[in-house]
Formats: sequence, C-alpha cells, structure tokens
Amino acid sequence: MEQAGGKMTLGWAARDSSGHLSTYIFSRRAPGEDDVTIKVLFCGVCHTDLHVIKNEWGNAMYPVVPGHEVVGIVTDVGPGVSKFKAGDTVGVGYFVDSCRTCESCSTGHENYCPQLVLASNGAGFDGATTQGGFSDVVVVRQEYVVRVPENLPLDGAAPLLCAGVTVYAPLMQYGLNTPGKHLGVVGLGGLGHMAVKFGKAFGMKVTVISSSPGKREEALDRLGADAFLVSRDPEEMKVAAGTMDGIIDTVSAGHPVVPLLELLKPMGQMVVVGAPSKPLELPAFAIIAGGKRVAGNGVGSIAESQAMLDFAADHGITADVEVILMSYINTAIERLERNDVRYRFVVDVAGSLAPVA
Amino acid sequence: MEQAGGKMTLGWAARDSSGHLSTYIFSRRAPGEDDVTIKVLFCGVCHTDLHVIKNEWGNAMYPVVPGHEVVGIVTDVGPGVSKFKAGDTVGVGYFVDSCRTCESCSTGHENYCPQLVLASNGAGFDGATTQGGFSDVVVVRQEYVVRVPENLPLDGAAPLLCAGVTVYAPLMQYGLNTPGKHLGVVGLGGLGHMAVKFGKAFGMKVTVISSSPGKREEALDRLGADAFLVSRDPEEMKVAAGTMDGIIDTVSAGHPVVPLLELLKPMGQMVVVGAPSKPLELPAFAIIAGGKRVAGNGVGSIAESQAMLDFAADHGITADVEVILMSYINTAIERLERNDVRYRFVVDVAGSLAPVA
Repeated sequence: MEQAGGKMTLGWAARDSSGHLSTYIFSRRAPGEDDVTIKVLFCGVCHTDLHVIKNEWGNAMYPVVPGHEVVGIVTDVGPGVSKFKAGDTVGVGYFVDSCRTCESCSTGHENYCPQLVLASNGAGFDGATTQGGFSDVVVVRQEYVVRVPENLPLDGAAPLLCAGVTVYAPLMQYGLNTPGKHLGVVGLGGLGHMAVKFGKAFGMKVTVISSSPGKREEALDRLGADAFLVSRDPEEMKVAAGTMDGIIDTVSAGHPVVPLLELLKPMGQMVVVGAPSKPLELPAFAIIAGGKRVAGNGVGSIAESQAMLDFAADHGITADVEVILMSYINTAIERLERNDVRYRFVVDVAGSLAPVA
Repeated sequence: MEQAGGKMTLGWAARDSSGHLSTYIFSRRAPGEDDVTIKVLFCGVCHTDLHVIKNEWGNAMYPVVPGHEVVGIVTDVGPGVSKFKAGDTVGVGYFVDSCRTCESCSTGHENYCPQLVLASNGAGFDGATTQGGFSDVVVVRQEYVVRVPENLPLDGAAPLLCAGVTVYAPLMQYGLNTPGKHLGVVGLGGLGHMAVKFGKAFGMKVTVISSSPGKREEALDRLGADAFLVSRDPEEMKVAAGTMDGIIDTVSAGHPVVPLLELLKPMGQMVVVGAPSKPLELPAFAIIAGGKRVAGNGVGSIAESQAMLDFAADHGITADVEVILMSYINTAIERLERNDVRYRFVVDVAGSLAPVA
C-alpha cells in the first residue's frame, strides 16, 4: 500500500457508450484512517452496470469501472478501523459513502441519503469519481463494508450485496417475511430468483408470475416456488385474484400493473424494484378500492445488508451464478442484455488477475 | 314501526342519469333482531352521491336515494341490540353491512370486505338495493352504527362519517398523526379541509398544495394551515422538495403526481383518496430512488370511524358546512359539480320533512 498519492489499481473500464470493457490502470485514494483496503475476489454483474457503461441513463463519467457486488479479503485497515482486520472476508455493495448526518443516515436508512456515493460512477466527497469492483483492489470506509459469514460460498454471495438486499430489505420492511403469508414474485431474473429464495426461507407461500410460460419448471422445480402464474393468461390470473399479501415486481420492461394489483388481498403491498423506462399506469381506483399499497425500493441499508447476509448464511441462500473470467466479460454483457443468464454472472476477479500479477 | 312488510319511508331519489332528485316513497326492511332504526336529522352531500345519481360510474340502480353521511336519533332497536337505545345520537357512513367473516372483516378492516354493502345504491345480502340517508328513516345493523359524541354539532358532524374518516384513517395507519411531522394536503375541498383540521389537531406542520393561488388565504387564515404551495409554481415546489413526511392527495381531477412525490422525504408516504378518471402516471424511479410509498384509501372501518368521531369531539373538529333544505338539493348538486361550496353541503333532512309530516 502506498502512503501518499494513492494506490495504483488494475481495473476494467468502459471508455464510451459502446460499453466495451478493457483493462484500465488508475489510482485509488490513499487509504485514510477509517478505510478498509480490500482485495477483490468476486464481483457480480448487475443490470445497472450495463445501463451505466452504455450510458443509457446519460450520466456515465468515462472511463467507468463498473461493479458493486464485491466480495473480497481485507488486506489492510486504517488506524481508526475497529470493525475489520486483515484477513476478514467482507462485502461491498451499491454504495460506499453517505453524508452520515441527514435524516435517512441518522435513522439507519443511509441508502436513501440524498448525497449517497455510489460504488461506481459516483461522486465521492473528495470530488473524485468512484470506480467499482471490476478491479484488483477497493478502498472503502469501514461503515460501508459488511462481513461475509464463513459458510457462504464467495461467488454465490457476491450478488447478495445488491440483488439480494434489494429484495430482502423491502420484504422485511413490509412484513412480507411472515410464515404462511403469500408472496408473489413478478419476473424471474437476478432479483426475482433471490426473492423466491428469501420468501421460501421465510416460510411463505411463493408464487412466481411471469410472462414466459417456459419458466414454470424453473420456478417450481429449480427454485422451489409453490405456484406459477402466466401474467398474460387472464383465467389463471383471475383464479389467483385477491390471494396475495404482497408482491415484489422485479420487471424492468414495461408491463401493466393493474392485473398484479388485482392479485393482492385488501391492504396488500406491492413493492417495485424494477424500473421500466415508461411510467407505470396506476388507476387510483385500483388502489383505493382495497386500500392497496405500492412502494419503491432501492437496495437496502448497511444494517439490512448485514442482516441479509447473516440470514442467507443461516439458511444456505446464495444466488445462482455463472462464474466467468474477465476475459469473457464483454460476451457476458451481451448475454445479460438479452437476459441469457441463470441468474447472475459473477466475475472471478482475482482469478482473472492471476496471470497478470 | 311496522313489524312485517317493512317500513314506509319518505325519501328523495334520482330516477335517471339527469340526477334530478324528487320525493320517493319506498319500503325499508322490517327491522330485525340486530337492527337500529334511526330518524335522520342531517345528511352530508358527497361527490360520490353526484357520481352515482348521474350514473357516471355506470352502476346506478334507479331509483337511487343517495346519502351516506347520516346523523340521526335512534327511535327503536331490535331485541339483539346492546350498543344503542332509543334517544341515542348516532351516525351511519358509507357502508351498512359486510360479510363479517372474511380476512378484512376479521381484522377490523371491514371497509375492505369484498362483499361490502354500501349505504346507497348497494346490494344488500337480502337481495334488495340499499337506499341512503336522503330519507326520513334508516334501518341499519348495530355493528355499522357509530355513536356521535354529545358535544359535536350535528350538522358539522355529518360529513365526518365519510369525508372525515377517509382522511383520518390513513393518517393514523401511516403514522401521519405525529406532532412535528410535516403533512402535505393536496386539494382544498370536502376531504382536503378535513385533512388540514386533523393534521393540525395531531400537532403536525400542514402545508396545503393547490393549483389555485386564490386558496392561499383560505388555507392559511381560515383553516390554520402553516404553509401553502401553488402546485403549478416550479420554484415554490422546488423549495419544498424533500420536506414532507406524508401527503394526502384528495384531488379527483387528473394531475401529475411526480411533483408531489418530490415533496416527500425519503421513505415518505403518499395517500391517494381522490380518484381521477385517468390512471396516475407513476415513473418507477420516482418511488425507487427514495423508497417512497403510494397507497390508496377507501373510507375507514367502523372502529376507525368511532375513534375519529371521538377525536373530533375532543378537539372540536367538524366539517365547514353549508346547511340546506332538501328543496335546494338540485341547485346544491349543480353547485357541487363546479366545486362551489365551502366545503360540504349538509341537508337538514328532518327540517325538510317537518312540513310534510
């Protein structure tokens, strides 16, 4: 570790809206008093990475090193660090800093801090653009690092840091972790398959709702869902009307929400975690008649992330992953774009670097 | 009271989609074991009455006797009635029966019972169409009757039975009854002015948001709101962004909701009680970024209605009303249609009948 001038880091960056990733040497900040230096082992590939590197949200600050589902080993800690020591297995998620003073930060919901610093393509308080986990090393303040329990496989744990907590946090917040309650999971991708696993671990009845009849076997046999509904089949949907306590909607393509709201019991809760580019069409009557509820959710707090990892370890929950080397990343991004992955690519970052080191 | 064949009742009904109201003699059911017979004193005029008598929702079962904000005096009770006795001052709201066995009924949220029997233009379990409070007498099961506290003026209390509980119930459910929290009230009509009063009685900071700059003085001086925002003024709205814990949206004309959601703090709650005919346009990002929440609400339970009346009595809260005789009702309906009332018409039903009796 260099003491001044920062640490030279080998990463993979997109340089333009092609999103093509190639090696990139850059400097991380010199670790400060409260910083944890982490050797990256695995990093998941999230749809958000794809949106950012291709500048689909118009905010890419090239070169962009993506990656915010990081699992690694602590190699060094600053003198103010009490939570971690060298050798610890840790995780870093969607954000790496926040103001620590606003109402959200003060109440343990720092994921909603208006000044949230994202792990990648974010604006750090030092003015520098943040670079993500597609790199050999990350340097993160201790408050934004979580402990990865020993018995979790590290590759399957990486996607928990974003996909996992994004579904776990709202299920907990809205009481959708109650045995016997009925949870609907809309869409069976990176987020949806995690929601099925958590829902089952909570002891819930879980029904997967998908536009693809072909996913029925996957949902029931591979993931252990209790039931499957084809969202385009009005008969199937009608039979299930009014039966669900909650629904988590992970679909980021445009889709009607009224048929989903009809699946809810009175006072049922829908949670939106997928973000279609067009607004949802929400007739007031569809929520007034049954006192129904729609909430958005963006990842989870650090405390929720830690609780989620601990729960996952206790229940043997990991993401279903396809582990790749960084040499395959551009192909993986193409496949991700057409949802051709069950259910998450995870880059073996350390393994990809070995020949270079 | 007749023992068989029901009770002849004098009411005012609409016969067709003109919505014109005229006298109508009909028969109410013979009071049963659990029924309370109530002489109607006052009945509020709600926008829903207007929609129904003009068949704007396509479900009018003419002749329709409207009215579901009833205050009256108990004249007789069935042998099974324990809650009330002759001479009691009572109220009846939006519904007069429910299945009493479903999950909503069993958990004290019978207002969301799928078999809810509305006070007017509803389908009773005996197969008869229900007729509302624009009549000399109503007969209602004791479970659906509430007690009107002694110190409440009866005319100003009538609209509490629908408009009052429609805003009180969600404010309580979503913790928007906490001193010091900031409540936004969108629209200043029958519902909105009640929300301001309850919000202030809860000790909240209350900001009225309206498209009409002309309502500023009313909001601040007459109703005691703390602040006023013109929803069409981007500068005013920007200054208030991220400051509100909750918003209750009472507007039934189409309007954009994103500027309202921007007023909410992270994890803030918006409650929709007005029902525009076109769907709300709700971009997923507008709720995901701050973990924001949108809920619909339809009136309130009987327990919530009673709690609301008791709270109103303790805090001297009534609706601001214009009391009319039934001879004025068709003019009043016309005025209501153009929102020309501050804030609720209440018919002096008993007073209107006196000359006829």
